[in-house]
Amino acid sequence: MTRADGDLLGSLAAVVGPQNVGADAASLRVHENDGSTLHPARPHAVVWPSTAEEVAAVVRTCAARGTPFVARGAGTGLSGGAMALEGGVVIALNRMNAILGIDAPNLRARVQPGVTNLSVSRAVAPLGLYYAPDPSSQAVCTVGGNVAHNSGGPHTLKHGVTVNHVLGLQLVLPDGDLVELGGAERPGYDLLALLCGSEGTLGIVTAITVRLLRRPAGVRTLLAAFETPQQASLAVAEVIASGTVPAALEMMDSVVVEALTAAFGFTFPEGAGALLLLEADGPLPGLDEEADALAATCRRCGALSVRLATDETERAEVWKARKRAFGALGRIARNYYTQDGVIPRTRLPEMLQRVADIGASAGLRIANVFHAGDGNLHPCILFDDRDADQRRAVLAAGAEILRACVDLGGSLSGEHGVGVEKREAMARLFTPSDLAAMAALRAAFDPAGLCNPGKILPTGGGCVEVPPRHRQAAL
Amino acid sequence: MTRADGDLLGSLAAVVGPQNVGADAASLRVHENDGSTLHPARPHAVVWPSTAEEVAAVVRTCAARGTPFVARGAGTGLSGGAMALEGGVVIALNRMNAILGIDAPNLRARVQPGVTNLSVSRAVAPLGLYYAPDPSSQAVCTVGGNVAHNSGGPHTLKHGVTVNHVLGLQLVLPDGDLVELGGAERPGYDLLALLCGSEGTLGIVTAITVRLLRRPAGVRTLLAAFETPQQASLAVAEVIASGTVPAALEMMDSVVVEALTAAFGFTFPEGAGALLLLEADGPLPGLDEEADALAATCRRCGALSVRLATDETERAEVWKARKRAFGALGRIARNYYTQDGVIPRTRLPEMLQRVADIGASAGLRIANVFHAGDGNLHPCILFDDRDADQRRAVLAAGAEILRACVDLGGSLSGEHGVGVEKREAMARLFTPSDLAAMAALRAAFDPAGLCNPGKILPTGGGCVEVPPRHRQAAL
Repeated sequence: MTRADGDLLGSLAAVVGPQNVGADAASLRVHENDGSTLHPARPHAVVWPSTAEEVAAVVRTCAARGTPFVARGAGTGLSGGAMALEGGVVIALNRMNAILGIDAPNLRARVQPGVTNLSVSRAVAPLGLYYAPDPSSQAVCTVGGNVAHNSGGPHTLKHGVTVNHVLGLQLVLPDGDLVELGGAERPGYDLLALLCGSEGTLGIVTAITVRLLRRPAGVRTLLAAFETPQQASLAVAEVIASGTVPAALEMMDSVVVEALTAAFGFTFPEGAGALLLLEADGPLPGLDEEADALAATCRRCGALSVRLATDETERAEVWKARKRAFGALGRIARNYYTQDGVIPRTRLPEMLQRVADIGASAGLRIANVFHAGDGNLHPCILFDDRDADQRRAVLAAGAEILRACVDLGGSLSGEHGVGVEKREAMARLFTPSDLAAMAALRAAFDPAGLCNPGKILPTGGGCVEVPPRHRQAAL
Repeated sequence: MTRADGDLLGSLAAVVGPQNVGADAASLRVHENDGSTLHPARPHAVVWPSTAEEVAAVVRTCAARGTPFVARGAGTGLSGGAMALEGGVVIALNRMNAILGIDAPNLRARVQPGVTNLSVSRAVAPLGLYYAPDPSSQAVCTVGGNVAHNSGGPHTLKHGVTVNHVLGLQLVLPDGDLVELGGAERPGYDLLALLCGSEGTLGIVTAITVRLLRRPAGVRTLLAAFETPQQASLAVAEVIASGTVPAALEMMDSVVVEALTAAFGFTFPEGAGALLLLEADGPLPGLDEEADALAATCRRCGALSVRLATDETERAEVWKARKRAFGALGRIARNYYTQDGVIPRTRLPEMLQRVADIGASAGLRIANVFHAGDGNLHPCILFDDRDADQRRAVLAAGAEILRACVDLGGSLSGEHGVGVEKREAMARLFTPSDLAAMAALRAAFDPAGLCNPGKILPTGGGCVEVPPRHRQAAL
């Protein structure tokens, strides 16, 4: 440990107590990766603050020394957003996991950033309420991380993403100032919307006021099996064109059908090459009619079978096919790499064909599990990570899939964020002027470039000039 | 005309043609006020560009000379947002009023900023679609102005405000750069959400991609009369607590009842002291049940009568009571000043009492017409503008109403914007740190301070210190 490190650790310990500073090899190692394991980077120290004031004091300590800092929740991110690329301090928010208050009449709750997504819904369930954004990792991921990524989930189609459910934020700015941001209810610039999805680069959220929804009186869930993804895509298009907004509209392809059958003994009709999960929720009057209409649409588009779940047990069974899809892939491949792209919904059949072509020409199998209603694809490229050639082919195929999304008028990330993974690809989606506006905005919040450096904006290629101060991290 | 003015006019004429530059007294006079007439300011020139490129060239011309510039739509704003407070150039966008394209399958349209709100819905009506945000001025106000104010309307409760219906923006930055902003579908900072509600201070919007909704299969509208606003407030609370989200939930008080009766011969039950307009929309199955449930709630809360409209003619009749409310006030008072504040919905009865008390102690009548479901109040203070004492009393009472909103945990503007009118009041709602973050953000876009100067942020009292580095940011 250098003398500079010692100074840093001592300063941090003075803020949060020595027991809440980690600089041993084990502490650092568990913070050098996220859910992707693609962009490992080891921090110099980890701190576990307990209050907003401690977070602010840690940030002021780092700012005074020119030390980079990165906020981290559960570390389930898939794009390297919580990696300490330039070293420095990881501010782990896991201990700030309290639900601070529930205001049922006004349908809102105040929570700390380290609280897990699912525990918010659990806490308010006795009141008949829930928190709508439901990423697949919701049992583990934190609300603070959801704000950073503006996370969605299977129910985004009807209920929106995180920004639609956040009413207020308490935030430590990169200079250590503590501010309170409100949303549409408050006049002035909507900094709250700006913060949602900013991947921890504009400050560190220390409290969140979330909107709660009343649990719908009824839910109807359907699982339809089709021969081809084209038929399932047609059903998606017809449902959307009908003006109905289902609570969920999720699609899985033949590779997933094979995996689910192999891993868990699911049975589907002979020849099933695509599954569509559809869900309707709302007041009971009209709900069965809505479910019937969804089933009729599936049949009209050639569904081999349509299974309707009307109670919680049947519903859980149907959702298993969706929720276990990723796990099932483990039965037919050693590894998989999940991409995250967006296309206009009407280009779905075309895009699925392109994904298939990309897989075929690379000699790779690609499974598709995705939010069809949102046009948000998650192609999973199956591979064996012991084979270096395959690893290279997988990354190339992933990049090609993203290029296809952009070509078709879509986007290179639906919900997993840009982070490190896609920062260079941003130059394909945005003009130099667009990126310069983003860089200027970021510099207004973080002129010293210490707050989660190296994320979101391209660093290479010279098309975006990042001032040298961003590259000169000091301890 | 000074020589500098001559240079300016010549430079502008070189961009848009001399016939599209106005500097005569009549042109300037019609651009020195908005809908409020509270903050008159005369520009040096008005230009009417026809394309985004012309807007960009006008902005570059102004930027090069250090001349302030202000975008203007229909001029229906109520907070002075389009006033050229420091003189300079008004960029009038009325000629950029084309609908550029309609993409029905993907439920979106691209429009120029000067198109009126209602004409978007009219253009897509043959396709069974509409544009949801519906400010009261929708026949006149422009989509560009709606973006600047993040406008809502009676249907905001269910369908959200402008930011929820804008998918992309083309924007001229204050340095004249033309950029394209995307929303949640695109990664990176959500500049689009930031732009919505920024009141023309971060750039000038030159094209807007709006989300279209499918027209609901059915609509049911109810008008309930109550003896007291407290009963009507109780009905609002019960409807919201039931988990139903009506398409509209609008309230009017006894002063409005009196005005409607006097002006248009409306008849209401004897003793009616509050009206509640409720609307349900959606698929036909379940719709009548939803309307019945709304009616039952009103009766349970003591409604004297509940009128249900089931066809378009009856519905138009019911809406007349709401849409003509402001006009009807003209029958019982020479002038009125409309305030715009927000409170948590649960504080509604308390707030109505405070408004009544403020009116009583100032010797002024105050009518209330408002979006009850959103907690967005519009107290209308009746007065005679020939009486200077009354004018002073009105402004004082308006300020007291806003203070009461903030005291009750609410906000000082729901939808009319901050503009000039409420800029000093911002210091009551936000801390110096909050305001400094907003000022730094604004300076990142507009370091020279030429883009609609004097709006949103407080100018007096010196309570907001902007660090010098923030003023040096360049885009």
